[in-house]
Amino acid sequence: MTNRPKLRIGLIGSGFMGKTHVFGFATAQRVFDLPFEIVLHTIADRTDDIAAQASRSLGFARSSGDWRTLISDPEIDLIDITAPNAFHKEMALAAIAAGKHVYCEKPLAQLAGDAWEMADAAKRAGVRTQVGFNYLCNPMLRLARDMIRIGELGEIRSYRGIHAEDYMADPESPFTFRHDPAGGGALADLGSHALATAEYLLGPISSVLGDSVTVIDSRPDGAGGKRDVEVDDLSRMFVRFDNGASGSIEASWIATGRKMQHDFEVYGTTGALIFTQERFNELHFYSAADQAGRRGFRRIEAGPDHDPYGLFCVAPGHQLGFNDLKAIEIANFVKAISGEGPEPMNFRAGARIQGLVDDVRRSSGRGAWIDVSA
Amino acid sequence: MTNRPKLRIGLIGSGFMGKTHVFGFATAQRVFDLPFEIVLHTIADRTDDIAAQASRSLGFARSSGDWRTLISDPEIDLIDITAPNAFHKEMALAAIAAGKHVYCEKPLAQLAGDAWEMADAAKRAGVRTQVGFNYLCNPMLRLARDMIRIGELGEIRSYRGIHAEDYMADPESPFTFRHDPAGGGALADLGSHALATAEYLLGPISSVLGDSVTVIDSRPDGAGGKRDVEVDDLSRMFVRFDNGASGSIEASWIATGRKMQHDFEVYGTTGALIFTQERFNELHFYSAADQAGRRGFRRIEAGPDHDPYGLFCVAPGHQLGFNDLKAIEIANFVKAISGEGPEPMNFRAGARIQGLVDDVRRSSGRGAWIDVSA
Amino acid sequence: MTNRPKLRIGLIGSGFMGKTHVFGFATAQRVFDLPFEIVLHTIADRTDDIAAQASRSLGFARSSGDWRTLISDPEIDLIDITAPNAFHKEMALAAIAAGKHVYCEKPLAQLAGDAWEMADAAKRAGVRTQVGFNYLCNPMLRLARDMIRIGELGEIRSYRGIHAEDYMADPESPFTFRHDPAGGGALADLGSHALATAEYLLGPISSVLGDSVTVIDSRPDGAGGKRDVEVDDLSRMFVRFDNGASGSIEASWIATGRKMQHDFEVYGTTGALIFTQERFNELHFYSAADQAGRRGFRRIEAGPDHDPYGLFCVAPGHQLGFNDLKAIEIANFVKAISGEGPEPMNFRAGARIQGLVDDVRRSSGRGAWIDVSA
Amino acid sequence: MTNRPKLRIGLIGSGFMGKTHVFGFATAQRVFDLPFEIVLHTIADRTDDIAAQASRSLGFARSSGDWRTLISDPEIDLIDITAPNAFHKEMALAAIAAGKHVYCEKPLAQLAGDAWEMADAAKRAGVRTQVGFNYLCNPMLRLARDMIRIGELGEIRSYRGIHAEDYMADPESPFTFRHDPAGGGALADLGSHALATAEYLLGPISSVLGDSVTVIDSRPDGAGGKRDVEVDDLSRMFVRFDNGASGSIEASWIATGRKMQHDFEVYGTTGALIFTQERFNELHFYSAADQAGRRGFRRIEAGPDHDPYGLFCVAPGHQLGFNDLKAIEIANFVKAISGEGPEPMNFRAGARIQGLVDDVRRSSGRGAWIDVSA
Repeated sequence: MTNRPKLRIGLIGSGFMGKTHVFGFATAQRVFDLPFEIVLHTIADRTDDIAAQASRSLGFARSSGDWRTLISDPEIDLIDITAPNAFHKEMALAAIAAGKHVYCEKPLAQLAGDAWEMADAAKRAGVRTQVGFNYLCNPMLRLARDMIRIGELGEIRSYRGIHAEDYMADPESPFTFRHDPAGGGALADLGSHALATAEYLLGPISSVLGDSVTVIDSRPDGAGGKRDVEVDDLSRMFVRFDNGASGSIEASWIATGRKMQHDFEVYGTTGALIFTQERFNELHFYSAADQAGRRGFRRIEAGPDHDPYGLFCVAPGHQLGFNDLKAIEIANFVKAISGEGPEPMNFRAGARIQGLVDDVRRSSGRGAWIDVSA
Repeated sequence: MTNRPKLRIGLIGSGFMGKTHVFGFATAQRVFDLPFEIVLHTIADRTDDIAAQASRSLGFARSSGDWRTLISDPEIDLIDITAPNAFHKEMALAAIAAGKHVYCEKPLAQLAGDAWEMADAAKRAGVRTQVGFNYLCNPMLRLARDMIRIGELGEIRSYRGIHAEDYMADPESPFTFRHDPAGGGALADLGSHALATAEYLLGPISSVLGDSVTVIDSRPDGAGGKRDVEVDDLSRMFVRFDNGASGSIEASWIATGRKMQHDFEVYGTTGALIFTQERFNELHFYSAADQAGRRGFRRIEAGPDHDPYGLFCVAPGHQLGFNDLKAIEIANFVKAISGEGPEPMNFRAGARIQGLVDDVRRSSGRGAWIDVSA
Repeated sequence: MTNRPKLRIGLIGSGFMGKTHVFGFATAQRVFDLPFEIVLHTIADRTDDIAAQASRSLGFARSSGDWRTLISDPEIDLIDITAPNAFHKEMALAAIAAGKHVYCEKPLAQLAGDAWEMADAAKRAGVRTQVGFNYLCNPMLRLARDMIRIGELGEIRSYRGIHAEDYMADPESPFTFRHDPAGGGALADLGSHALATAEYLLGPISSVLGDSVTVIDSRPDGAGGKRDVEVDDLSRMFVRFDNGASGSIEASWIATGRKMQHDFEVYGTTGALIFTQERFNELHFYSAADQAGRRGFRRIEAGPDHDPYGLFCVAPGHQLGFNDLKAIEIANFVKAISGEGPEPMNFRAGARIQGLVDDVRRSSGRGAWIDVSA
Repeated sequence: MTNRPKLRIGLIGSGFMGKTHVFGFATAQRVFDLPFEIVLHTIADRTDDIAAQASRSLGFARSSGDWRTLISDPEIDLIDITAPNAFHKEMALAAIAAGKHVYCEKPLAQLAGDAWEMADAAKRAGVRTQVGFNYLCNPMLRLARDMIRIGELGEIRSYRGIHAEDYMADPESPFTFRHDPAGGGALADLGSHALATAEYLLGPISSVLGDSVTVIDSRPDGAGGKRDVEVDDLSRMFVRFDNGASGSIEASWIATGRKMQHDFEVYGTTGALIFTQERFNELHFYSAADQAGRRGFRRIEAGPDHDPYGLFCVAPGHQLGFNDLKAIEIANFVKAISGEGPEPMNFRAGARIQGLVDDVRRSSGRGAWIDVSA
């Protein structure tokens, strides 16, 4: 490990997602045979004190109350942005301009146009980028995609995708940046994950027809009053894929009782897959090729047959956790930086998803289909 | 039982659905304390021989190769129609004109207009009618509806309904009456069930936006050639309910691996329900009122607490079967004939569902929302 | 049907199990192509009034307050005993002596010796007999047994069986005949089912080691006092099968929350089966012959491939109910009476199960293995 | 973090379990607010080269081909033993003699007597010890134990525990140290986990009656021949707990299809719990106190309400993985070293489990109950 080149991280933001990234770096470093030695170089947050405190608890060598310090530090190779969404664009563009690789939590920016601007800047600068769509890093999703590509389901005919949670179900849950008309809403927050999974599995979506609904139209403003909410609490869409399949996708943050219903069902001519993130170490597979009277959905449990599970654990059935998915995401990105393999979800891909989110929103407003071909 | 008035049945059709009705009459007669003694009076089918054979195997006193014999027989009180869909209207109108109660399998007719004509005729004649939507007769659906009405879920916000099977998944499965442009398709055959369940639970749908897709565009014509298929293989719709909730509903007959995915999820402000017909003796209930750290979807198993389960079985966990649902449907109808309780699903309600099917199809063609208020 | 010989039933007992039998006769008559026309001839109960009332509600031609009337009636072909356990032996022996076929609810008698006496009498008289072990009539159990016999699991190595419910979990639930030291207890009531299923699937048990526990040692006596309970509330046993497999079996009637946990797991060299009566229209099958990375337990749903499901329903996924299992039991017995196929569970088989129950109880008392070879 | 005292680790063994420990140290360090800064000081393995290689890939500062170097290094505070079982005792005793804390994978030694000797030595030396029973560190097990202690299930009546996998199901899987008569077998390897979970939840077991079976009596010896196997492939036991409950426990390593069936069911007077490690982020809870008609097993999903889940993830439903359980184990031990809280599973507790394993084996040999009171 000591002979490997160093990849020095500058992390902006020490809140929960910042911590999750640090967990991910620590695990990725141990579990994978990475082409770089990861160094937690500097952490930035709003004030010197907060940053200094975070550097101690999270294990960074230095800290700063000004994120621009990290951008201008020639030692830092990768800027990791977990600051509030409103700052993503400015920070990422500055990092790109400084020639650094950028890892940014979703959404890239509040508007798809801004996200595309960021993607274009990264391309021009030749830096590597990554947006955090961690659910895609599950070995069982990779298995699902491989099975689809290999043809184990035959020709794909239809798709159903959902991402539902209930963290905004309570009308007394206050107005936050997630309710900001620019970039907020269940569709942007959760539908983006469902869209990413759909395209990951079946390839590009070609057209959409959206249906966005605001259920809770005002929320406490934190000052004893109420503030109007314009963003969607739940959104549905019909979709068509380039491969000819049709489907539906839903997102809701008011699905009482649901904590992580990131689910999909894929139906092909000769097989089908069912998945729920609620039990994300399983994939259920039906094959019409099984013998009559013995057919049924098989509960495949994650194991060493499903890369990269085996790096975490030698035996099947032990299960990965959410933070392990983040470690896989980081490992994939780090490998892409060294030229091993493609960027798993770069800014271009992230901008694509945000574009889809905007398209669904527009389609819902018009009540009509919209072409979203890439 | 001997003192009860007789309800003499004239059954048209001795195919599988005819048999299922006979099973249902036999079971209903034994399990329920019915206001009538049910008498299997006459059975009709295409020829005298077929009918005579059926009368022996199914236990009817008489038989006929001409269904009109039953209509004109003054002894017969109830005409039960399980003949092919194309004959439903003519038979039902004749029975109504003869002053008989009518029990007709779905769909009532190929076009919604015809179904409404039948409903109006029945109303004018003052006879009792019933359309076969047997899934609604499940005690767990009744429980779900009661819980929703009582407010155990709070205010209802969203709904997801599905009816998916795979009996038309094979492109070599031949063209049948189910592929007839007049009244055929997955939406008419299965979507009608999903729509009936949605309105049963949440009340009237007020508007729809449909998305119907033909996946297999020709099928074997039985003569060595191919015949074009115009009906949908799968349909999706967005819906709005009068009560303010929004939802989505799907129907597919090409969902490889699915045998009976008649499912729903209902989300309210303080609770939720999940149901699948694949395990139709269970209802899963989440209550936000449960103690923190102890919340979760509860798997309620059908039992004597859930009417009319207790008439079939004194103990919970024993489970009803599909044919039992048919017996409940029949018992409810027979009671309605004697004036006990409302008709569970009369021709008016059946015509309503067919109207919705047509509306979804039209909406899909236009790619736009349609008002479907009753 | 009219040309078939009549099989005239004399039913003793009009309580719930009596009703269940009547439901079963009605369904069996319609669903199966039986070699006899079943005639509900006479019903007997404790008094003339109760019996007369039952004859009307259940559809018998005659009734009697004295069960001996049925025995001596030369018109009656089959005596069906659903009276309290204490009367089973006397009634069955009388019926056998009169040359009648006998259908008796389990347990045959309170002591295994009595049950063997009944079995021997039936054999000498050449009459057909049946004991009610209805869970065995599930098409999915038949499928499981066939798969085991054909070798789809390879060589069978181990077995786990359970029958747990909670109807005696409440210490305030009063003392009944089920608590009678002669023949009572969870082992006799529920363990007998678990033992029957184990031998149905894997063949004869050769030795047992039991562990019976009385948890609630007194119960209300119905007169304001308490009565000591000596029978077991739960029993466990280790078993060896003639085929070399080992296993464990449990029975409990105090398993809070369980309504019908009649479960088993069978492990062979190359495959396994998992079943729960809580979802008895499913059988879960693992085959080591499946491709690596695609293995998993398959949820096989009951359908027409699994006899005799197809007689109830043409399509898979519709599901049988508990009362349908009773109808299958009756159909199998009626066919055995006419010489088609073996008696599914005759008095000999019933006595065998009761012998096993006694053996387990004795083994538990001694805390030692007991040979139970047939 | 920099102000905290250092806890310098000397790890013996760089195989898979060694790696898992390193993953665990890395994660524990980041996720928990530990009282020490963990330093990966030295790693030892069979040769200098292997150790040097491991030090680079796993991030240790130094390495050695001789584990005794670590024992004698005064800088090292904690010896972590993941070497083959046969070396555990010697290594641990040496470490204890050197005054170091010891973390040792299970089993402590091949014989229970040796394990007790180790436990006694640790006690005399006043060092802290830990045995790796990682399943116990699951927040859902802690929840289960807390619910039982608080009385949410009422009085506990019965228990069923299982640990079944299939990694030895293939008779061609060769003879290894796990088949060594001294300390090998399914009972020692997996039954120990099931016993640990049982005592963790319900408290001490007071007596056992075992049933151990060798199914595959010879295995390839790696030299083209066969070697006799004397250890058990599966074991079952009846148990009694000090609290009056009775139960059964099973272990199997030939349960074809099972990858991680570490399951339990606990039944109390007013509630019950069901758990399976196959879905270890869930706990199923039945409460008889729920309203009639609404009772059922609730699927509680792991979340921040269940310590220490919230340190890994702020939202419920995200799920922990197996390696996270290891991190919790390590964090608990590190806290115990600093005096915060008790040792979660010290050598005494580990010796207790091994004693139980021996007792079950002896009991099986005798076919009789054995007192195992602590």
